Amino acid sequence: MHAVDIIAKKRDGLALSQEEINWFIDAYTTDALPDYQAAAFLMAVCIRGMNRQEISDLTLAMARSGEMLDLAKLLGGYAVDKHSSGGVGDKTTLVVLPLVASCGVPVAKMSGRGLGFSGGTLDKLESIHGFNVNLTTEQFEALARKNGLVLAGQSKDLAPADGKLYALRDVTGTVPSLPLIASSIMSKKLAAGANGIVLDVKMGEGAFMTSLEDARQLAQMMVDIGVDSGRDMIAVISDMNQPLGHAVGNALEMAEAIETLQGGGPSDFREHCLQVAAYMLRLAGQGQRWTDESEARALLDEHLDNGQALAKFRQMVAAQGGDVEMVDDPSKLPQATYQVDVTADEAGYIAQVSAKAVALAAFELGAGRERKGDPIDLAVGVKVHVKVGDQVGPGAKLATIYANDEGRLAACRKYLDEGITFHREPVAPLPLFYDTIMG
Amino acid sequence: MHAVDIIAKKRDGLALSQEEINWFIDAYTTDALPDYQAAAFLMAVCIRGMNRQEISDLTLAMARSGEMLDLAKLLGGYAVDKHSSGGVGDKTTLVVLPLVASCGVPVAKMSGRGLGFSGGTLDKLESIHGFNVNLTTEQFEALARKNGLVLAGQSKDLAPADGKLYALRDVTGTVPSLPLIASSIMSKKLAAGANGIVLDVKMGEGAFMTSLEDARQLAQMMVDIGVDSGRDMIAVISDMNQPLGHAVGNALEMAEAIETLQGGGPSDFREHCLQVAAYMLRLAGQGQRWTDESEARALLDEHLDNGQALAKFRQMVAAQGGDVEMVDDPSKLPQATYQVDVTADEAGYIAQVSAKAVALAAFELGAGRERKGDPIDLAVGVKVHVKVGDQVGPGAKLATIYANDEGRLAACRKYLDEGITFHREPVAPLPLFYDTIMG
Repeated sequence: MHAVDIIAKKRDGLALSQEEINWFIDAYTTDALPDYQAAAFLMAVCIRGMNRQEISDLTLAMARSGEMLDLAKLLGGYAVDKHSSGGVGDKTTLVVLPLVASCGVPVAKMSGRGLGFSGGTLDKLESIHGFNVNLTTEQFEALARKNGLVLAGQSKDLAPADGKLYALRDVTGTVPSLPLIASSIMSKKLAAGANGIVLDVKMGEGAFMTSLEDARQLAQMMVDIGVDSGRDMIAVISDMNQPLGHAVGNALEMAEAIETLQGGGPSDFREHCLQVAAYMLRLAGQGQRWTDESEARALLDEHLDNGQALAKFRQMVAAQGGDVEMVDDPSKLPQATYQVDVTADEAGYIAQVSAKAVALAAFELGAGRERKGDPIDLAVGVKVHVKVGDQVGPGAKLATIYANDEGRLAACRKYLDEGITFHREPVAPLPLFYDTIMG
Repeated sequence: MHAVDIIAKKRDGLALSQEEINWFIDAYTTDALPDYQAAAFLMAVCIRGMNRQEISDLTLAMARSGEMLDLAKLLGGYAVDKHSSGGVGDKTTLVVLPLVASCGVPVAKMSGRGLGFSGGTLDKLESIHGFNVNLTTEQFEALARKNGLVLAGQSKDLAPADGKLYALRDVTGTVPSLPLIASSIMSKKLAAGANGIVLDVKMGEGAFMTSLEDARQLAQMMVDIGVDSGRDMIAVISDMNQPLGHAVGNALEMAEAIETLQGGGPSDFREHCLQVAAYMLRLAGQGQRWTDESEARALLDEHLDNGQALAKFRQMVAAQGGDVEMVDDPSKLPQATYQVDVTADEAGYIAQVSAKAVALAAFELGAGRERKGDPIDLAVGVKVHVKVGDQVGPGAKLATIYANDEGRLAACRKYLDEGITFHREPVAPLPLFYDTIMG
C-alpha cells in the first residue's frame, strides 16, 4: 500500500477500508511514515469526515498500537469504567468510584494526568498527603484484586498511536474533528479493557463541545465505537455552562468530594454522581441486578448517607499510602493563605456563572498546568456559591477565592466579576443532564 | 501570527488575508515552519479551494520567494513569454520562439527540464550536438540582447517556495488542486518577468487536465493571476487526446521542429505553432501592431515558408554552441538502431490515437525520465503517422518505433496496438483548440 493513495482517497471523500486504516496507523506508529503524510491525512479526515465503520476501525487500530488490558480477567468478572470529557469542577470520579465499589462492583481505573485549567483526577488525589498514583502494574493489580478499588496513573503506554497523533493534531489545526476526538478517547478506553463504559460528555461554554448537537453526535459516535467492539455503553450529556458543584481547584475539589461521600456536598454534584453511578451499576448488573433504576438509586443514596462509600474511599487512600487523617478531617488538606470573598453589587437572579471564566480564574491562581510537567498549586482555587437561577440580594457571597499569591487576586476577581452575571427577571436554572444515549 | 490559526481558517473554508498567506509562505520557505504544518495547509487548500484574491496572493508570495527578473529591461522593451502545461509530442517552443523572434519580437526563455514520458524542451535542444543550455546569467543576457533569442535552463532559482511546496504536494496527495496548480505554474512565470504571457493549456487523456471544464477553470485562473499582477495574458486550450504532430521523442521531435521551420512538418503542428505565435505577436504589439490577427498570421506564414524563422533558429543554435550541420541536415541528429513499423490489421477510420499510450510507448524505449537526473536516450521514440478521423486500408503504416533496445520493442508495440483503435464508420477529427481566454 502507498500512503499517498490512502491520503488521496480520503481527500476525495471516499471511505477507507480496514486494511488501509490499519496499514496507515501501524506505519505511522512505527515511524515508517513521516509526520507530513499523517498531517495531510488528518486534515483530510478533519474536513471529509469518516463513516461509522471507518471510525471503529481507526479506534481499534489505535487501541491495538499498544497493550490491550483485560480488566475482566483482573477483576474476576464484568469490569466497568467511566470517562468524562472534562469539565470545570468535575471531581465525579473521586465520588463515583468508591460509591460503585461499595456496592460490590470492583473498579480499577487508570487516569491520565491531563492538561487543563484546574488539574486532573491524579492531581486532586495528590492533594491527600502521601497518596501514591504511580503504582507498578503489580501493585495496581494486587489492589484491584484485594480491595476491588484502585485509582492510579497509567503504568502502561495505552494506545501510543493516539498519543503520537494527538500531538500532531495539536500543531496542525486538526483537533476539532468529531471522528478524531471520538477515536482518540475511545482508543484509550478500549485498551483499558472494561466490558462496560459510562461516558460523561460535557456540553456548554466550559466544555470542548459547545453545542448540544455536537455533543450528541460525539456521544453517539463513542457509543457506536464501543458497541462495535463488543462493549456495553451508556453516554450522558451533562451541562458544563456553569461549574459542577461549588469547588474548582485540586484540594478544594477533594474536600468537596469527601463532603459528598459523607452524605453532604452540593446538591447538583451529588445528583450528578448518583446518576453516573446508577448507570455504572446498570451496566455491571448485566440486566440481572439493578435493571430497575430506582432500586439502584436507592442503594447508592444509602451508601452515600450511611458512610459505606466513604469507608471504601478511606480504604483506597490507606492502601495507596495516603494520609487518612485528611479524609477524616478535610481541613487538614492543603490550605491557601488568602481567602477573599466576591460579593454581589446588586440584587437579582444569577443569569450566568461562566464555567470558562471560573476555570480561567483558577488557572490564574496556579491550579492548572499548560504544559506537561508544569508544577501546580494544590491549595488554590475558587469556590462558587451560586448557581444559575439563584436569587441573591446585594452583598450576597457569590464566590470565594483561595490564593497563595496576593498579586494574582485582582486578575482572578476580574474573571469572576465578568463571568458571574445578573438579570432583574427570574432566570430558569440549568439542567444537569441534556440527554442519555444507550448502546 | 500562528501557523495553526492560518491552517484552521482554511480548514473551515474561510478566505485568508494577503498578510496571512505571505507570512505562511515566507515562514515555510525559510524553514521556520515544519513540513507537517505545510502539509495540513496544502490539504486544506486542496479540499476547500481559494478565491481569486487568495490565489493571486499565494502566487505572488511564491514568486517573490526568490529573484524577480526584469525581462523588459533586459530586452529593452515589451517582453513576451509562453508556457505549455505539457503534452505528448509538444515541441511548440522550438518553432514558435525563433518564429516570433524572426518577426522582430525578442524572446529570452528559461525552461525547466521537467519530468515526463518524453523529455522537456532542454532535452530536445540537447539532441543537437554541443548545444549548451547551461548558460550563466551573463551569457543568457548577452545573447538575449545580441540576437533577440535565447533558450536555456534556469540559471537562477526562480520561485524557490514553489519548488519546496511542489515536492511536498507530491508526497501528501495534494497535487490535484487547481489553485495549487495555477499558482505553481504562474509563480515561475511571474518571476521570469515577461510583460505578456501566452499559456497553452492542454486538455485530454494525455494531459493533466482531462476535462474541458477543468482545463477552462485552470486557464481562467492563470489568466486572472497574470492580470492581477499587471501582465497581459492569453490562454488557449488545446487538444491532448492525441499527440501533437507526429514525432514523440527528443531527436525525433527536434527533426520535426526543423522540418516545420523549413516550411513543412505535420499540418496540425504547423497550425498550432502559428496560432500560439500569432497570440504572442498580438501581445507584443500592444494593440498597435498585429491587432488584426490575419495580418500577423500572414507574416508568420511567410516567415515559416521563406526560411527566416529557420535562420533565426540556426543563429540561436550557433550562438549556443550547437552543431548547425544537424540543423541543415536533420538526418545527422541521433538515430536509433531499430526502426519498426506498426501497420493496420484492418480497414477503417482511426477512432483514437491515445496520447497516453504513445507517451508510455516512448517512455518504455527510454525517451523520458521518472526522477531528476535519470539519463534519457535522445534517439528513441515513436512517430505516429495517423490522426483521429483518418481513413486507412489494411496494411497502412500507423506508426514507426525508433528503438535502441530490441527487448523493449514488444512492450512498446503493445501500447501502440492498444492505443490506436479503429471504427468501421467515419469518425470526426479532433479539434486543435477548444477555447481561447483573453486576459
